[in-house]
Amino acid sequence: MIGMRAHALHGILVMECGRVVILAVRPCVDGGRYPVKRVVGDTLAIEVDAVADGHDKLRAVVRDRPADRAEWRETELVLGPDDTWRAVIDLPALGRHIYTCVAWVDAFASWRNGLDRKLAAGVDVTLDLLDGARLVERIAPEHAAAMRTGSIAAATSPELAAVMTARADRSGASRSAELTVLVERPLAACSAWYELFPRSTRGDGTHGTLRDAEARLPYVAELGFDIVYLPPIHPIGSAFRKGPDNAATAGANDPGSPWAIGNAGGGHTSVHPELGTLADFDHFVAAAHALNLDVALDIAFQASPDHPWVKDHPSWFVHRSDGSIQYAENPPKKYQDVYPFDFDSADRQGLWNALKGVFEFWCEHGVRVFRVDNPHTKPIPFWEWCLGELHARYPDTIFLAEAFTRPKLMYALAKSGFSQSYTYFTWRTTKLELEAYATDLAGVRDFFRPNFWPTTPDIFPEHLETGGRPAFVQRLVLAATMSPNYGIYGPSYELGEHARRRGVEELAHNEKYEVRAWNLDAPESLRHVIARINQIRRSHPALQRGELIVQPTDNELVMAFAKVAPGAHAVLVIVNLDPFHTHRAWVTLDLASLGLEPDQAFAVDDLLGGAHFTWRGARNFIELDPQQMPAHVFELKPHVRTEHDFEYFL
Amino acid sequence: MIGMRAHALHGILVMECGRVVILAVRPCVDGGRYPVKRVVGDTLAIEVDAVADGHDKLRAVVRDRPADRAEWRETELVLGPDDTWRAVIDLPALGRHIYTCVAWVDAFASWRNGLDRKLAAGVDVTLDLLDGARLVERIAPEHAAAMRTGSIAAATSPELAAVMTARADRSGASRSAELTVLVERPLAACSAWYELFPRSTRGDGTHGTLRDAEARLPYVAELGFDIVYLPPIHPIGSAFRKGPDNAATAGANDPGSPWAIGNAGGGHTSVHPELGTLADFDHFVAAAHALNLDVALDIAFQASPDHPWVKDHPSWFVHRSDGSIQYAENPPKKYQDVYPFDFDSADRQGLWNALKGVFEFWCEHGVRVFRVDNPHTKPIPFWEWCLGELHARYPDTIFLAEAFTRPKLMYALAKSGFSQSYTYFTWRTTKLELEAYATDLAGVRDFFRPNFWPTTPDIFPEHLETGGRPAFVQRLVLAATMSPNYGIYGPSYELGEHARRRGVEELAHNEKYEVRAWNLDAPESLRHVIARINQIRRSHPALQRGELIVQPTDNELVMAFAKVAPGAHAVLVIVNLDPFHTHRAWVTLDLASLGLEPDQAFAVDDLLGGAHFTWRGARNFIELDPQQMPAHVFELKPHVRTEHDFEYFL
Repeated sequence: MIGMRAHALHGILVMECGRVVILAVRPCVDGGRYPVKRVVGDTLAIEVDAVADGHDKLRAVVRDRPADRAEWRETELVLGPDDTWRAVIDLPALGRHIYTCVAWVDAFASWRNGLDRKLAAGVDVTLDLLDGARLVERIAPEHAAAMRTGSIAAATSPELAAVMTARADRSGASRSAELTVLVERPLAACSAWYELFPRSTRGDGTHGTLRDAEARLPYVAELGFDIVYLPPIHPIGSAFRKGPDNAATAGANDPGSPWAIGNAGGGHTSVHPELGTLADFDHFVAAAHALNLDVALDIAFQASPDHPWVKDHPSWFVHRSDGSIQYAENPPKKYQDVYPFDFDSADRQGLWNALKGVFEFWCEHGVRVFRVDNPHTKPIPFWEWCLGELHARYPDTIFLAEAFTRPKLMYALAKSGFSQSYTYFTWRTTKLELEAYATDLAGVRDFFRPNFWPTTPDIFPEHLETGGRPAFVQRLVLAATMSPNYGIYGPSYELGEHARRRGVEELAHNEKYEVRAWNLDAPESLRHVIARINQIRRSHPALQRGELIVQPTDNELVMAFAKVAPGAHAVLVIVNLDPFHTHRAWVTLDLASLGLEPDQAFAVDDLLGGAHFTWRGARNFIELDPQQMPAHVFELKPHVRTEHDFEYFL
Repeated sequence: MIGMRAHALHGILVMECGRVVILAVRPCVDGGRYPVKRVVGDTLAIEVDAVADGHDKLRAVVRDRPADRAEWRETELVLGPDDTWRAVIDLPALGRHIYTCVAWVDAFASWRNGLDRKLAAGVDVTLDLLDGARLVERIAPEHAAAMRTGSIAAATSPELAAVMTARADRSGASRSAELTVLVERPLAACSAWYELFPRSTRGDGTHGTLRDAEARLPYVAELGFDIVYLPPIHPIGSAFRKGPDNAATAGANDPGSPWAIGNAGGGHTSVHPELGTLADFDHFVAAAHALNLDVALDIAFQASPDHPWVKDHPSWFVHRSDGSIQYAENPPKKYQDVYPFDFDSADRQGLWNALKGVFEFWCEHGVRVFRVDNPHTKPIPFWEWCLGELHARYPDTIFLAEAFTRPKLMYALAKSGFSQSYTYFTWRTTKLELEAYATDLAGVRDFFRPNFWPTTPDIFPEHLETGGRPAFVQRLVLAATMSPNYGIYGPSYELGEHARRRGVEELAHNEKYEVRAWNLDAPESLRHVIARINQIRRSHPALQRGELIVQPTDNELVMAFAKVAPGAHAVLVIVNLDPFHTHRAWVTLDLASLGLEPDQAFAVDDLLGGAHFTWRGARNFIELDPQQMPAHVFELKPHVRTEHDFEYFL
């Protein structure tokens, strides 16, 4: 914990305890138990609360180093109001990075302060110069000698101050605990995901292959996504295989769910023969990389009854009293096609290493992004160990937690190493809900990176069933602009698929159980809106990392928020949340938060719709027809528009 | 820190890590670095955030013990919303008390939960009973045997559940760090202090003695105070002695400041001969105790140049280059009558032990309350060590920090062992300031206990110079009702002394430098108001410990707040902050926080002025004439008044 300096303990007079008390170091997650998260290129703004008795001058530095190096870098902390010290350090390299604070009483500076005040008051300082000479004689003997002769110039010389600062006596220094920041690649903080089922990429309803999926990659790249995410690509078990729309029994030609992993042909490190070979996968990855797309694999730690590990490592599963293996249950529901692993197995070391080995296998095949299925049903200590090991060996790896569970469990997973997490965005629809959720997420941003998905193959929310194309655009814009990380499940989403299976929060003819044929060129496709949104995200730093600042409106169905980033134009997003009706609203901008002056005109350019306005002052009127475009994504430029600016839009 | 359970560390597969992750334990000061504070008879409401993967049932307990005993007591934590577990433990004894949380996956309860759900669904449970028999056979073999024959009754019997709960397998348990609560005597949390200079108790302007001061004790007790606090009672140095109102030189008969401690006759463990003998002091303490008054001594760790330690322990002071001892300075100001100690002395152990010995000496003479002068100019690690030692030996000792300094330094002292602290109340006068300060203090209540003083011998604020008697009553009521700990400097305060020394925030003819004669029976004395306020405090638990809840009013000069305590009537305090004019206001009560129903009439009895009303609903009107009484202190009784109630007031 903070303040782990040697201190005066009950009954023990610790002689070396420091006079400075370090009360807090920020950022800090759970007292340093878990790392803070940043990405390469970020700066880390460090704040330290430190006090000492009396009026002496203190000094404080932050020391930092990569976790795998011994040498510290040192940055001076600067004292601000309320005994808070601040410094900003850069984070140029991937991996775990350590930071700590050291603070001490600066005897020379304290003495200089007294001297300066006496000099200003015209008081005799002969004795003070002698006292000062004692302080400096070891480090600066020539200055000490001059001070003994009464030289004020020697005592106050900048060189003396510099050398006394550089060679400060830190023997009584206090030290904070060593804290960790996990530095990931920038994609961990800003990413657009596109999920697709490779077997549905042939387009004619027959089982597609990784080669077919590879042919889809230019489409995904054109839409402006960063990551193409594939559901499990492994052999699918046949025992208790599910039929269409989760039917209890499958027909002979039903392909089964990709999450029922493993058959005699292989398990988590094999490719389903109907999709192709490992070589086809390597080819797919290379093709994706050529298009600047990362490939994300789905890691689902569970086995079909046909998985090779069931025979080879029976101790990795729970055995019941009759010798049968425990299948997944949520009594009275049974999931006989899925065997969970026994993380407390007698061969725990073997199982844990094998699971880590699954990630390593795919890392060796060029994968650096993993979407982890239901991590909240596997022990958190497993993840902390496994992801820690993987981050150490492959520091550019990103892990997305598919944890739709309770908030604190989601946060515990994030603390334990997941780079990103699915969220409740999928079900947050009203302005109040969305704004409150943004506030919640701001409070955990040091360790929890949300990834907003309007739908997934598992979740199709009610508002999209009835809202039509306007609802799909609304949710797309909200996901892509509220959160730097977002994703869609395609082509279902861009084609506006919205027929739900009765009584279930899922699409009918669910692609989890069937091969689907998609007409990407259908006129109703949202592909152009999606491409535009992704282009806006890429060209606007405010949308890539920025904090969301709610801007009040007088209409409960019109939500407005701004995002800002240093050195970049602010972006103002205004969404009509009603898919059926045109809405008008007065938006009251928090001009200061947007870097705008109250009396200054500013240019407001709609990056989505193309309209352009000049606004002045906080209160502004907007009107949004959802049939046309239910949202504005405004770029704000704090200057009066010139003719040239107009030309740009004409 | 929280979560110091064995965990999966980078590169080390720790096999014994627990599945439950303990994310937070509350209350907790700086991650457990400092103790939480409570008093004997308090309960400690503990909240734990703990999660585990999956849907298994967890169990969690809080364990606690006195720091000096080995045996733990155990209390079940109960799961509430948002993965928060709660328990309340009592704190029956003085001293340091340890608490920690243990949480684990309850295999039997998890199994029972599945069984119950299957039974409810009418599913066959034969195999489940066999599985359950394996779980229980070691602890309850007879139940296991019955379950193997298919006995649902055996599986679901309450005795089995009880024995499995009592003898739970905790081998995989997770443990939080051990946290400390410092349990002090109730007086640490609720106390009314009365400061008096013993030498001014003769009444005729000649130097009084401890015997004269003893004669004043019944008066102090009648006023309803708990603690009589004496400025330093030690021999006063004559070197550089200050004259009246801090004059640079003293006349032959000037008594000097009691804070210039020590002369050839003795130092911090001696009694000033003009005050009497150590025996007189013992007599004074006994007389005070007989009146249920605690005696507080002023501990000022500094020496006059005549202090015996200057000769006997020269190494305890800073020596300058010319061999002179460093006196206190705030350049260019000099305080040549005061030598600070050198806490970094080569004989540090000797000095620190001697200073601790000062407290011990007076503890042995029956003193259990100390007001510590300027603790913020002595090293915080010294206080943490010294007060820790003293609390261990004399756990009923209370320390008030006279730390008028920056907030974080005041908080650091509180964390390091001070029971109470002086505050900024003395300078907070507007409603906005007072309410904001109450909010600040609520945020630190687990370790910082404020003590509100309207004036001290060192501080006489401007508003009392001009506000007359109404201002004195206002500030008295605010101090005594906003804060469970408060004090006045008397008889100056009750006599309304208000002539300030020019250019200084101090009273003229300051008692620090002069013997004063006070006429306690002066008609303008506030003694009866003070006695009434102290009586109200003693009879109303809400004022002794309760949290302050602001109640909005529509008048910036009328402040209203409530205090509540479990099982006691709420108290509503309304103060006209303007000493010159009558004010009226509508007060909008937060009825829920006061335990009142919106449509229920309630009795409102003014404990200070004697008026009585029946109110109904949130909005109520008040009028306060400061010349009469600038405040209401209402007791709220949530019932319709009966005739009997009226009689009580007639």
